[in-house]
Amino acid sequence: MSLKALHKKHVLTPWVAQAPLNPPLVVRGEGVWLYDEEGRRYLDLSSGLVALNLGHGHPRLVRAIAEQAATLAYAAPSLFHDKRALLAKALSDLSPWPEGARVFFTPSGTEANEDALKFVRHLTGRFKVLAAYRSFHGATHASASLTGENRRWPSEPGNAPGVVHFFAPYPYRSPFYTEDPKEETARALDHLERVLLHEDPKRVAAIFLEPVVGSNGVIVYPEGYLEGVRALCDRHGILLVFDEVMTGFGRLGAAFAALRFGVVPDLITFAKGVTSAYVPLGGVLVRETLARYFDENPLPTGHTYSGHPLAVAAGLASLEAYREEGLFERVLAMEGFFQESLKALKDRHPVVGDVRGLGAFYALELVRDRETKEPLSPWHAPFSPAMQALQKALWQEGVYLLAKHNILVVAPPLTIKEEEFLEGVERLSRALRQVEVEALG
Amino acid sequence: MSLKALHKKHVLTPWVAQAPLNPPLVVRGEGVWLYDEEGRRYLDLSSGLVALNLGHGHPRLVRAIAEQAATLAYAAPSLFHDKRALLAKALSDLSPWPEGARVFFTPSGTEANEDALKFVRHLTGRFKVLAAYRSFHGATHASASLTGENRRWPSEPGNAPGVVHFFAPYPYRSPFYTEDPKEETARALDHLERVLLHEDPKRVAAIFLEPVVGSNGVIVYPEGYLEGVRALCDRHGILLVFDEVMTGFGRLGAAFAALRFGVVPDLITFAKGVTSAYVPLGGVLVRETLARYFDENPLPTGHTYSGHPLAVAAGLASLEAYREEGLFERVLAMEGFFQESLKALKDRHPVVGDVRGLGAFYALELVRDRETKEPLSPWHAPFSPAMQALQKALWQEGVYLLAKHNILVVAPPLTIKEEEFLEGVERLSRALRQVEVEALG
Ligand SMILES: Cc1ncc(COP(=O)(O)O)c(C=O)c1O
Ligand SMILES: Cc1ncc(COP(=O)(O)O)c(C=O)c1O
Repeated sequence: MSLKALHKKHVLTPWVAQAPLNPPLVVRGEGVWLYDEEGRRYLDLSSGLVALNLGHGHPRLVRAIAEQAATLAYAAPSLFHDKRALLAKALSDLSPWPEGARVFFTPSGTEANEDALKFVRHLTGRFKVLAAYRSFHGATHASASLTGENRRWPSEPGNAPGVVHFFAPYPYRSPFYTEDPKEETARALDHLERVLLHEDPKRVAAIFLEPVVGSNGVIVYPEGYLEGVRALCDRHGILLVFDEVMTGFGRLGAAFAALRFGVVPDLITFAKGVTSAYVPLGGVLVRETLARYFDENPLPTGHTYSGHPLAVAAGLASLEAYREEGLFERVLAMEGFFQESLKALKDRHPVVGDVRGLGAFYALELVRDRETKEPLSPWHAPFSPAMQALQKALWQEGVYLLAKHNILVVAPPLTIKEEEFLEGVERLSRALRQVEVEALG
Repeated sequence: MSLKALHKKHVLTPWVAQAPLNPPLVVRGEGVWLYDEEGRRYLDLSSGLVALNLGHGHPRLVRAIAEQAATLAYAAPSLFHDKRALLAKALSDLSPWPEGARVFFTPSGTEANEDALKFVRHLTGRFKVLAAYRSFHGATHASASLTGENRRWPSEPGNAPGVVHFFAPYPYRSPFYTEDPKEETARALDHLERVLLHEDPKRVAAIFLEPVVGSNGVIVYPEGYLEGVRALCDRHGILLVFDEVMTGFGRLGAAFAALRFGVVPDLITFAKGVTSAYVPLGGVLVRETLARYFDENPLPTGHTYSGHPLAVAAGLASLEAYREEGLFERVLAMEGFFQESLKALKDRHPVVGDVRGLGAFYALELVRDRETKEPLSPWHAPFSPAMQALQKALWQEGVYLLAKHNILVVAPPLTIKEEEFLEGVERLSRALRQVEVEALG
């Protein structure tokens, strides 16, 4: 039996029905390229799931992983461990808090949010939490409860109680009936205040927020919004949790979105970029003034793989690579180039309704008609035939892109060369043209 | 600042208050030994958290990890991947189902149970699930809801709804008022039937069960119990989920407890031993006749690290090591030796109230008095001074043991040599003697 047939026979693939699946079977990676079993290559324009920030086969990471595996692959989290201490210190140094931070390590992003949820409830003694519609915070039941879209539904009604959803800004399709960014911010904050009023702000432990919405469309909030949320939290003693699982570690040209935007949350959840996804790792950063609470009160959680030695070694090596190669600064320097290249795509393709993003983090929102903004593939439904055709064209052109409904997420490894990015855009353009001609005619 | 001070300043340790923490800082491992920064060594008698089945520095695993890191450390789970297909096939071959299985990979044990919970609800269209008191299924909110002990409490009342707890057998402290194993089984099954009657068996999607209770005391169910649960499930169309996160991969001398006991569940969740904990990995095995449902129905979950290439490569190498070194058979051959060595400990130490277990999986239950069975450290409270003294003595004697309340879990790497095990028992004996003399006097 071929490996592809074996895969289909024995592996369950996330979120989709299994019968129609037919993606490439990848066996090797190098820089921004993935190779399948026949040696065909695919440009990885989404860093896997916006995670592989250092590209494939990064020598420093490969070496660090090999060395740590030989030295100490695993130790129980009840023991102390050298690299775990060093990574926590490095993360504290990168954190936005003058007093530093403590870290609770997890194996994944969803577990980071699950644990952050427990932390804010224990820290405040309050129960309710607010999270945005159109957010994704993970697939386990409580993170799914926080999630503001259809990936919450399959665990309903089994989800964790106590979550209230609100609308955050979405300039391209404003939930606040305006096209003016200032008004969008003002109305979004007014809306949040109304929700708080009806929920009782004194019962709200925290607001969970992706500082830039990730898989649901790389929505950059208009100026003043994050500051306004912070001010509301301050006014009511509510903790602000930034879910930086996607936005952390250089994606926006800084260690954290909090630093890029100059808005300081109380906790930060992270994963993905912390190890460039080479070894599963996530965690919660808690500012020291809050973390202190756990000196005398038991931490309300634990995982076998918390602070996993191989994972923290990969984390340390990743942070070193980011620093020594100046990758966060590089992203800032490339930002204009990325934006221009993608805006050019919009000029050439009527199917591209909106291009947005910053740093190395962009979305193309695809539409049937720029006037009506009718999505190329409706939200919360399986891919439309046009989107299926686009997916097929992308494989044929040799480019991998994270796609959801009518959104393509362009988030290349931070190490991508200009000519590689342009080649990716060219391949993407050919795939879009094919769909425009064949599926939209 | 010393590494130890740095650890304490920046890392949050699971489940405990942070202030009193003072464990060794480990930097290196070799076989069954852990080494701290001063070169002192600790015999790892619990395989970390009953996970490191192949011991530290296993050459085949170290090599496989180094190679895979250089080849392809990460790829999105929406792509197919060679080693992922091969590991899934190998797991299917090890599974107890004649028709084989499909695997959904996760980064951890708790995520495996979270996902299994969604699967059984989607597969049956039913909502309630049953789980045992004194069980542990993980720390994320839904797995914590399944959990039948105090590690559920810190997420209350935020836990996922729909879980009902029942009592399973516990011969040493019978919840069914008998000392006769046959009666224990009969009454436990009667009790379970009564619970089902009052919950309506037609509303119950699944029963989650550790086939041998793990961190809550290595409780081996008396003969006939698992068979009886299986029969009840069959009678009512309820799915049986074995949580084999601890019991899988040779811990009981077989790939799964299901095979050791000849009782066939419908789903198996696993983690830990699948990679010998070298890389975080877990998953859900779903028998093929059920998994088929997801051919046409979307899988209700997904994770960034699902089927992580580095993790599945470590899994493949672990399975090869288990097979080539005949480790499952070795555990069966060593079982008598393990049992005798630990029973001898009971003969020498009045503080050891009960020794139980099988394969390479044992518990010592510590008591102040064998007659009254008063626990050395009360359940669901911080360690008693005597237990604290024992923990200190264990560090001094150079042995690492997983301890919970009045339970010590003895679960060495499957590769442990007889003389190493005897040395561990000797060290443990000296620590117990110290507590008997000093703390219990
Ligand atoms: C913003 C955000 N939070 C949380 C998660 C969940 O992370 P994981 O898939 O590691 O559980 C994701 C995953 O894409 C994410 O994008
Ligand atoms: C039986 C059982 N299930 C689930 C888990 C949770 O696994 P993890 O810590 O990888 O989330 C554990 C952990 O000890 C366990 O023993």
